[in-house]
Amino acid sequence: MTLSTTERSTIQRAKLRAVTDRAVLHDILDRNLVCHLGVLVDGAPRVLPTGYGRDGDTLYLHGSSGARSLRTDGEVCVTVTECNGVVYARSVFHFSLNYASAVVHGTPQVVTGDRKLHGLRVVTEHLAPGSWDYARPPTAKELAKTTVLAIDLAEASVKVRDGDPADDEPDLDLPVWAGVLPIGRGFTAPRPSADLRTAIPVPAHIAERS
Amino acid sequence: MTLSTTERSTIQRAKLRAVTDRAVLHDILDRNLVCHLGVLVDGAPRVLPTGYGRDGDTLYLHGSSGARSLRTDGEVCVTVTECNGVVYARSVFHFSLNYASAVVHGTPQVVTGDRKLHGLRVVTEHLAPGSWDYARPPTAKELAKTTVLAIDLAEASVKVRDGDPADDEPDLDLPVWAGVLPIGRGFTAPRPSADLRTAIPVPAHIAERS
Repeated sequence: MTLSTTERSTIQRAKLRAVTDRAVLHDILDRNLVCHLGVLVDGAPRVLPTGYGRDGDTLYLHGSSGARSLRTDGEVCVTVTECNGVVYARSVFHFSLNYASAVVHGTPQVVTGDRKLHGLRVVTEHLAPGSWDYARPPTAKELAKTTVLAIDLAEASVKVRDGDPADDEPDLDLPVWAGVLPIGRGFTAPRPSADLRTAIPVPAHIAERS
Repeated sequence: MTLSTTERSTIQRAKLRAVTDRAVLHDILDRNLVCHLGVLVDGAPRVLPTGYGRDGDTLYLHGSSGARSLRTDGEVCVTVTECNGVVYARSVFHFSLNYASAVVHGTPQVVTGDRKLHGLRVVTEHLAPGSWDYARPPTAKELAKTTVLAIDLAEASVKVRDGDPADDEPDLDLPVWAGVLPIGRGFTAPRPSADLRTAIPVPAHIAERS
């Protein structure tokens, strides 16, 4: 299944780097933790980092019911980006970053009832897989303090830059090192909370993540 | 020097996590590579990842002169976020992320002439320190293909979440592990470009970064 091609979700720049495979969109969303939510507040754009989760072609966001950025009634833009390496070229002009990004345009729906609970589960399991059935579930009061939004992944675009620098042919003989400085990323050893009262072992769903 | 406190740059949520020290703003900007630029396009927000650099209290962004997102004549929002750890709580409600983010509101100025070259140097040195004087400088044609924007860091806010989960007192006796799964990040060994024609050693400014 390929991605949509509305005017704004068609990559205008760097066409070679646009990706139209929906599986790549899903992968980028699934392997990152934070999105940047762009909303309109008093006529100006505001961009805030927030958690999310994906279920099929629905993106769920959650946040405090008091958060201004979640009380939007118009279109939003949700962008997820990962930085994979610094690209050193022979010429300053061709310096770049290896990255993957997903940009989603949509009008979020506030979800309620069973679907709200489902959305929260999706967001929690995205942030911390295995945790929904392990930790204490939300109370009615906690649910009331939380807003869950659903955004359809219908209008989305993906951009990926990977590999070596793209220097101009005449520059290839310059005595300048060119290549990629990769960026590594991963979980390190879990650190118990200072107020953990008993010697509760780190459960497998957390231990195996690091 | 403390950060500004206009209405929108005053942290409305989670007040304890707002930081008003300008040095922290600078640190967050300096130690990350990509910002999310929020602009208004046809009345809807658009959020795109892009490179940047800081010089004092000016943020420089650059991009292709053809990029729609840089041809803005209004206010923009620039957000930089780093994810430092997943916070596992006893209750689903208190799951969180340890992170630091900087949000800047401003009206970008297109810079030209010497200041454009300076802005490009700042952006290049942010992405790849030591590279401006090492690699081939931009030609007039390359400069024409590049747009450089300057944004004043006058209106900015910073939010930092760090440390253990903030569980409710009655939950502390639950048989649930709580703590932080830290996220590590760093450069790995430089990888030479496949078309590097001679055995050019990795220069110190790159080798010493990994």
